[in-house]
Amino acid sequence: MQPYLIAPSILSADFARLGEDVTSVLHAGADVVHFDVMDNHYVPNLTMGPMVCKALRSYGITAPIDVHLMVEPVDSLVPQFADAGASIITFHPEASRHVDRSLQLIKSHGCQAGLVFNPATPLSILDYVLDKVDVVLLMSVNPGFGGQKFIPATLNKLAEARRIIEQSGLPIRLEIDGGVNAENITEIASAGADMFVAGSAIFNAPDYAQVIQQMRQNLAKVKR
Amino acid sequence: MQPYLIAPSILSADFARLGEDVTSVLHAGADVVHFDVMDNHYVPNLTMGPMVCKALRSYGITAPIDVHLMVEPVDSLVPQFADAGASIITFHPEASRHVDRSLQLIKSHGCQAGLVFNPATPLSILDYVLDKVDVVLLMSVNPGFGGQKFIPATLNKLAEARRIIEQSGLPIRLEIDGGVNAENITEIASAGADMFVAGSAIFNAPDYAQVIQQMRQNLAKVKR
Amino acid sequence: MQPYLIAPSILSADFARLGEDVTSVLHAGADVVHFDVMDNHYVPNLTMGPMVCKALRSYGITAPIDVHLMVEPVDSLVPQFADAGASIITFHPEASRHVDRSLQLIKSHGCQAGLVFNPATPLSILDYVLDKVDVVLLMSVNPGFGGQKFIPATLNKLAEARRIIEQSGLPIRLEIDGGVNAENITEIASAGADMFVAGSAIFNAPDYAQVIQQMRQNLAKVKR
Amino acid sequence: MQPYLIAPSILSADFARLGEDVTSVLHAGADVVHFDVMDNHYVPNLTMGPMVCKALRSYGITAPIDVHLMVEPVDSLVPQFADAGASIITFHPEASRHVDRSLQLIKSHGCQAGLVFNPATPLSILDYVLDKVDVVLLMSVNPGFGGQKFIPATLNKLAEARRIIEQSGLPIRLEIDGGVNAENITEIASAGADMFVAGSAIFNAPDYAQVIQQMRQNLAKVKR
Amino acid sequence: MQPYLIAPSILSADFARLGEDVTSVLHAGADVVHFDVMDNHYVPNLTMGPMVCKALRSYGITAPIDVHLMVEPVDSLVPQFADAGASIITFHPEASRHVDRSLQLIKSHGCQAGLVFNPATPLSILDYVLDKVDVVLLMSVNPGFGGQKFIPATLNKLAEARRIIEQSGLPIRLEIDGGVNAENITEIASAGADMFVAGSAIFNAPDYAQVIQQMRQNLAKVKR
Amino acid sequence: MQPYLIAPSILSADFARLGEDVTSVLHAGADVVHFDVMDNHYVPNLTMGPMVCKALRSYGITAPIDVHLMVEPVDSLVPQFADAGASIITFHPEASRHVDRSLQLIKSHGCQAGLVFNPATPLSILDYVLDKVDVVLLMSVNPGFGGQKFIPATLNKLAEARRIIEQSGLPIRLEIDGGVNAENITEIASAGADMFVAGSAIFNAPDYAQVIQQMRQNLAKVKR
Repeated sequence: MQPYLIAPSILSADFARLGEDVTSVLHAGADVVHFDVMDNHYVPNLTMGPMVCKALRSYGITAPIDVHLMVEPVDSLVPQFADAGASIITFHPEASRHVDRSLQLIKSHGCQAGLVFNPATPLSILDYVLDKVDVVLLMSVNPGFGGQKFIPATLNKLAEARRIIEQSGLPIRLEIDGGVNAENITEIASAGADMFVAGSAIFNAPDYAQVIQQMRQNLAKVKR
Repeated sequence: MQPYLIAPSILSADFARLGEDVTSVLHAGADVVHFDVMDNHYVPNLTMGPMVCKALRSYGITAPIDVHLMVEPVDSLVPQFADAGASIITFHPEASRHVDRSLQLIKSHGCQAGLVFNPATPLSILDYVLDKVDVVLLMSVNPGFGGQKFIPATLNKLAEARRIIEQSGLPIRLEIDGGVNAENITEIASAGADMFVAGSAIFNAPDYAQVIQQMRQNLAKVKR
Repeated sequence: MQPYLIAPSILSADFARLGEDVTSVLHAGADVVHFDVMDNHYVPNLTMGPMVCKALRSYGITAPIDVHLMVEPVDSLVPQFADAGASIITFHPEASRHVDRSLQLIKSHGCQAGLVFNPATPLSILDYVLDKVDVVLLMSVNPGFGGQKFIPATLNKLAEARRIIEQSGLPIRLEIDGGVNAENITEIASAGADMFVAGSAIFNAPDYAQVIQQMRQNLAKVKR
Repeated sequence: MQPYLIAPSILSADFARLGEDVTSVLHAGADVVHFDVMDNHYVPNLTMGPMVCKALRSYGITAPIDVHLMVEPVDSLVPQFADAGASIITFHPEASRHVDRSLQLIKSHGCQAGLVFNPATPLSILDYVLDKVDVVLLMSVNPGFGGQKFIPATLNKLAEARRIIEQSGLPIRLEIDGGVNAENITEIASAGADMFVAGSAIFNAPDYAQVIQQMRQNLAKVKR
Repeated sequence: MQPYLIAPSILSADFARLGEDVTSVLHAGADVVHFDVMDNHYVPNLTMGPMVCKALRSYGITAPIDVHLMVEPVDSLVPQFADAGASIITFHPEASRHVDRSLQLIKSHGCQAGLVFNPATPLSILDYVLDKVDVVLLMSVNPGFGGQKFIPATLNKLAEARRIIEQSGLPIRLEIDGGVNAENITEIASAGADMFVAGSAIFNAPDYAQVIQQMRQNLAKVKR
Repeated sequence: MQPYLIAPSILSADFARLGEDVTSVLHAGADVVHFDVMDNHYVPNLTMGPMVCKALRSYGITAPIDVHLMVEPVDSLVPQFADAGASIITFHPEASRHVDRSLQLIKSHGCQAGLVFNPATPLSILDYVLDKVDVVLLMSVNPGFGGQKFIPATLNKLAEARRIIEQSGLPIRLEIDGGVNAENITEIASAGADMFVAGSAIFNAPDYAQVIQQMRQNLAKVKR
């Protein structure tokens, strides 16, 4: 496994030129396209659905697309996103009555599956499904609300999640989303994260390549 | 008032090049951008939210944007779409407990307001709110489901809606959405419609200008 | 079309011997099996689902099965009941956001489709879907609550529904459900009904054949 | 029947001295206590429940209490308010799946029953339940939102409701709620109302008796 | 306490001859009738309600009936099933806002009470209610979906639940439901289960008695 | 910090003379006004909203008001209660999808924030939000249901919560609500509580001061 993955969130991209902007950020060195799906029910915002994902594939994007479902309920969108070209599909356990089933559903459609944890959500839901999880995504801000900073308590949570993953011996990614930037990425990676969602930190920068390169340099300093 | 308005639905546009594709269709003669918002609750599909609307305005689109909310509930998205540059906001009366209030809310944000009627929904909800309605939109297919044909019973409904509008003496648009194309547009206009949403009929055509011109020619044949 | 149909509701049958009891009532002269489906959400009771319908078909029941869905939402159960052997599927329009679509869905699965009207529900939802409706079912009690009598205002509603059906020229059944018995059936048929659900009036009688015969004799007296 | 009833809404009373304030307004000549119940679901506000109603009865209030339920669903609160001393209970038909049943439930608990119509809600739900309705309440503002004026379209609606009531020959009250004051009460009564809810117009006046007397004087000028 | 209980799920029985089929399986040696209640809301299926339970009692079934509520919310069905003859009522903690209250409600109606855990649900909800729980039911498949196999992670969960029960010193049954058959029953019992739901493994077998006997023989081999 | 706080619940006060009754109980020695908000959705009861809180402030109550939200969802009422004069706002974590966000929202409005735990709810939701919590409130009865006794298992839960608070080193109050009286207050305080809600134990007593004094005397006996 590649040690660290940089996943720009297209929430901060230019939706009028999405294909072009996503291509640029991938050329600038990003590894994964992070795709934020909000339905105005699980979170108080509406973003975009499977059609937009499909358009990116038709445009020629071949990088992994990491679909983060901030929707409730979950299951009906899974086949739609799988058909639209998703590589990874993650969801919030509170949003599905049948978490094990939703994980199985994602995998049966050929995607990697993951669980997302809100800042306050305990990790105990991982107890009996770790073998079906490819990605654990910790939110370091509250999803669906703008202008937030990285919540410090997430560092301890990352450490606890890292411990659980190591103990399992399974090849599970530990993804972090919310307020990540080139400055705090070293500390975050030291706490255990190995996949980094960044929105405005990348797309609002004048030079995508420079900020991504800076992130990688700072990741190189991580000691665990 | 311009006698007829052509409103291409961006649901059939290329989401990876949305600014460019919408610019093309407007250059080809379209009057209004029809913007379909689905939340996977009122209809079984998720499309796109205020951000995409805002991106079109930032790209330089100045034509009216006609936002059709297929969402439930309605009110929280109204200010978001008004801020994002919407010109018209329409919603389904079943999706708001307080229809008069939702209409007032839209207008208080400086947008035109409209009600949308599903194929089976009676027109009686218009009885006491006509003075707050700028657009009556009749669905001639069931919203949120793909691959449907124009429902013939809509022609009688258009005639009834036209009668109600004429009787009121108010400058209300009568919009139609679903299965409209250059072939049936004459009949639909004859029944009373004066604003035409068309998705695949325009965006799947090899030459946007040609199909829009054909629509206008056929509209010129309408006798009422 | 057969002038009158008698449809015993299996809600009053013996669920421990359902195949046998339904067979008896059909041998006694009933035309149709009325199958009441309650989900404890649309109505405050839970009865039975597709499995029980399927078991009746496996037992050898070949009479039409008339499935009355007192559930919300509607669409997910339609294919399940069609597969389980339903002949007719009716639903309450308040329970489906997309009434036209639900009617089409039922018919696309090879069943006859109908709308059910609660005692207070106006008939206006019929305005633009009559061509997709095979059965109009008027409730003469409130569904899901026990021990009720036939609501007299239903007689006027039957007359109004009969007028709408006659005006359409379409072969639509006018079904009645709630408090029907051999005594009031003449009056109810005179008001316009031609399909009669009866539960306890039949299943609680000592001799099913006798009560059904009595109903038919009283129906013979109807003058319209 | 008394020709006109004045019903001050306790929403504008002093909740820290409710018994005293309600007693004052009744001594000042009011006929009925109007009790607004909001649950933060049917409307975006939470007011008060059965306990407060009961406290008024324990305090010694013997005037009729007219409970207006702006809640969803309706049925579970009906017995609670009946036990707490309600005289009339009204509800919004959109908030109950089983309108006829809710009306019966209210009457079975010994209260008068009524239906409330939002500004945009058509009157057609009255078609088959008029015989169970003691009060028709028309909202002339949107319930649950502050600072609104009387919606003019309500005057036509009052006239239509009055026509329906007269045609029925039944002793049904026609109540109006929202933006009513001593200035517009003549016009409103002329349109057909005979029961008047007023909140701030009464409770914010320096002298309750004076404003109620003014209302009665203006009502005396009504010609129908 | 009897060391092991075999509880055939009537979901796999013949619903047209339910009394007869249940009698057969009890004569064949089963201990308890497992009664699966689905409402098409908590799970995507609708099965059967209190009436069917009551019919089994009227038919003469005297064995314990173990009602597994896969419904949401829970409380309204509890008295109905208690009246219909239920012996045990279990529910999913996610489906009740007031878990302690629902447990008390079941016991106040004279039934044994239990909590059911979906495959992914942690056991922590047991922390403060063990003294009100007579049965802990672990799902080894996702409820409400067909054709699934026993989820292996359930074995560890059984061991953990067994540890919690032993530590409490309370006479709590540890029930298992999903994919249980005569082949894997030894392993499942070794992990800690002492009550076994089996559906198709029993009802699809040519000889109920033979498969139940085989189960008991394999249970005799369990060493703990 | 004051060692112990007595917080009478106004649910047991006289709603017709609320200002006077609350003033009396504060004069009698109470520290905090406990304000129970129920919306008939999170719990099966409706009590009172922000208006009543505001009226207490206008009446001249200056003591802290401790608002316990038994509502779902939570966020929309937070600014309303903050504006109405709340000092503390607590909510149930099951009632908010975004617990960390709701806590931040309360604090951003200048109030102290707290989480409430139903009798069966585990304490694990505290894991990553302790730094945003000013009050932990344990329910020792099920909220919203009348006539209950103190649930004994709460004593262990209090001890566990006390341990978590001590370990954090943060100045967090440990509040208890349900069945508290002068007899059991010593034992409850010994288990770890330092803030005591009492309803009928105080308001139903002939002399408020006497019972509060008795509580303080018994609290003086606590050894930890």
